Amino acid sequence: MTNPRAPLATTTSRGIVLDLIRSEGPVSRVELAEHTGLTQATMSTVVRQLILDGLVLETGRSESTGGKPRVLLNINPDARFAVGVQLGADFITFVVTNLSGAVVGRTRTRGVGDESPDRVIERIADRIGRLLASLDIATPLVAGIGIVAPGPLDLEAGRILAPPTLTTWGDFPVRAALQRATGLPVTLDNDATAAAIGEFWGGTVANAAAHCTVYMAAGIGAGIVLGGTVYRGASSNAGELGQLWVDDPTGKTPGGTVEDLAGPRAVAGRARALIGAGHAAGFELSPDGDPFRDFDLIATAAVHGNPFARELIERSAEQLATAIVNLANILDLDSVVLAGPSFATAGSLYLTAAVTRLQQRFFARARHPVDVRLSAHVADAAAVGGAALILQQELSPRATELAGRARRRPG
Amino acid sequence: MTNPRAPLATTTSRGIVLDLIRSEGPVSRVELAEHTGLTQATMSTVVRQLILDGLVLETGRSESTGGKPRVLLNINPDARFAVGVQLGADFITFVVTNLSGAVVGRTRTRGVGDESPDRVIERIADRIGRLLASLDIATPLVAGIGIVAPGPLDLEAGRILAPPTLTTWGDFPVRAALQRATGLPVTLDNDATAAAIGEFWGGTVANAAAHCTVYMAAGIGAGIVLGGTVYRGASSNAGELGQLWVDDPTGKTPGGTVEDLAGPRAVAGRARALIGAGHAAGFELSPDGDPFRDFDLIATAAVHGNPFARELIERSAEQLATAIVNLANILDLDSVVLAGPSFATAGSLYLTAAVTRLQQRFFARARHPVDVRLSAHVADAAAVGGAALILQQELSPRATELAGRARRRPG
Repeated sequence: MTNPRAPLATTTSRGIVLDLIRSEGPVSRVELAEHTGLTQATMSTVVRQLILDGLVLETGRSESTGGKPRVLLNINPDARFAVGVQLGADFITFVVTNLSGAVVGRTRTRGVGDESPDRVIERIADRIGRLLASLDIATPLVAGIGIVAPGPLDLEAGRILAPPTLTTWGDFPVRAALQRATGLPVTLDNDATAAAIGEFWGGTVANAAAHCTVYMAAGIGAGIVLGGTVYRGASSNAGELGQLWVDDPTGKTPGGTVEDLAGPRAVAGRARALIGAGHAAGFELSPDGDPFRDFDLIATAAVHGNPFARELIERSAEQLATAIVNLANILDLDSVVLAGPSFATAGSLYLTAAVTRLQQRFFARARHPVDVRLSAHVADAAAVGGAALILQQELSPRATELAGRARRRPG
Repeated sequence: MTNPRAPLATTTSRGIVLDLIRSEGPVSRVELAEHTGLTQATMSTVVRQLILDGLVLETGRSESTGGKPRVLLNINPDARFAVGVQLGADFITFVVTNLSGAVVGRTRTRGVGDESPDRVIERIADRIGRLLASLDIATPLVAGIGIVAPGPLDLEAGRILAPPTLTTWGDFPVRAALQRATGLPVTLDNDATAAAIGEFWGGTVANAAAHCTVYMAAGIGAGIVLGGTVYRGASSNAGELGQLWVDDPTGKTPGGTVEDLAGPRAVAGRARALIGAGHAAGFELSPDGDPFRDFDLIATAAVHGNPFARELIERSAEQLATAIVNLANILDLDSVVLAGPSFATAGSLYLTAAVTRLQQRFFARARHPVDVRLSAHVADAAAVGGAALILQQELSPRATELAGRARRRPG
């Protein structure tokens, strides 16, 4: 409780107090009052109601510093749970988190593929039911499901529009369908944005002034948090890092998008083409030709030092590193997190390339460094972020936007 | 006075009222009270003081709509003046604006070149003195000088750091030096940021949710205004569009920055190289080899249909258009303005390329268009923005940041 923090973007004292107890607990009523500026009387009323609602527990007393020892408050982690679902062409990932944000269950199934959206929603609902049952979590304790998908999305309508990696989901009302299938409240958000919210919620990038979570699954996106607030753009479609276009500077070839050049499908396709042309790989690609399984095999071989695989991954890592430098030069970033299933195996190679390129080419490098790290939940970051979206709504019911713990810098 | 508008980021009623009168006048006290939510009594007090200070004039009466005709208020445009100076390797541009933001004087001299910063500051101070004298503006009426330069800058210290196009100005304390030389208050800002502030101040992009002013002088930058607020990044170095790196997607050539590939120096260099290799240009380059004069000659020839020049400018325009699409895909822009001396002659060719590329490759194009236009002050936009910085401080003394008239969209 020593750092000053900006207030959460909530209009309720209850939300502010509950989020403070979650992120800073165990903590006393006196400290909470000092920290929020609320009067001790208001604080007592709010805390009493939170205890009655079962959301907060008294967990002991502080060390005496001469005066009367203070009762310490903590979040009741098992009072509520949230489900996060990460919808991808490569995988569908599920996590369950408790009210303090800890992951208490996770599972993963095959990606969306060519299945109809209706059938996939059935699969998801069934898998959520079985996961909650295996964890002995009763439905009334589940605050909701945060499902996340690549953009473009229509967040207001709860629809997936036409993501390049989920082509059959055009205009599908995913929020309404999953709500119907599960009977639980559902929130839809962009996967990269959710991953960034999860990083802030988890506290790892709490002091960043200008942060991006670079998210690579089948596609590549970026979740942007500026001054502690999620930045979404004019139509909630900001951060489309994979859609950055790379022109051939010599003008001789047509160029392509970062996703087409550096994404998992591109790496897998390049590997098959080279092997088809007679290059010796030194390892086997997948028998069914699944590009995401291929990418994982290549990443594994690269990490184990196979030179053919290493060159493929390093080329992808360098192309992505250039895109990250460009993102940093536009936004003057001080923090980048790499997250998503495609960083799960060879994330360290991507991290090294990003760090190196930023040292060489970040415009403001003489002013400040860019902190770059791999997400602690690298493969499941967007699912964890989806659950965080739900917990955030639960903790601060009228908050409409994340505001993290960023201390704004002057200028 | 029909559009709702977000409040200016000022803490004073005086600032809010003065800016409303400036942007919306002629306007009555009743309309001002309705629009600001201030009581009529407070409004009368504020307006009385503004009239006493000579900043506001009573200018007539509104048409009667049955009731008593209302006295209309307008800004007194000649109550204060501001100077904007645009410092560049190509040119130094000076404008003087009155309190309503209208340009009442302008002039331009040769760029910084190899001269020492101290000598250039002397030149600038001398030129400002002569310009104000020619306009019969007494020094006490000059609110200050807004000088703008390419980044990186240290805004707090009022220093230019080490811009790629002003290499001899590294660490030069430009604000202090110009203050000493003129005896006037001086504000330093980034040229592209100032140009963007000038566009908002002028009202042309007032409703943009996510706006960039793409600024091309010797270098290329972007001024970013999100939700009506200037976005500066972790160290006030956001928007470095010219520093975006373009990798060769085939991996065969080393690539380069957008500025190195598409900027005026690159175009001039390519023309000289081609002519040197025997290509027939059909027009003369400058005898002294000045790249900015060459660029202007090429742009002029391109606009007049010379095929050699046209191909050079179109290649530059396409490379810049790709960078603009990338900026739009990161920020989900709904508004772009092209400004700066390098758009003065062939701006329409750059505009066409940007519009075409955005139609083809802007990720959220199915959701909303991007409004792209040339600045009304295309060559002097940053100088006009520099003067706007000063007027803004004068009009709302405690405002530290621009907040425009953007109506935030949901999401």
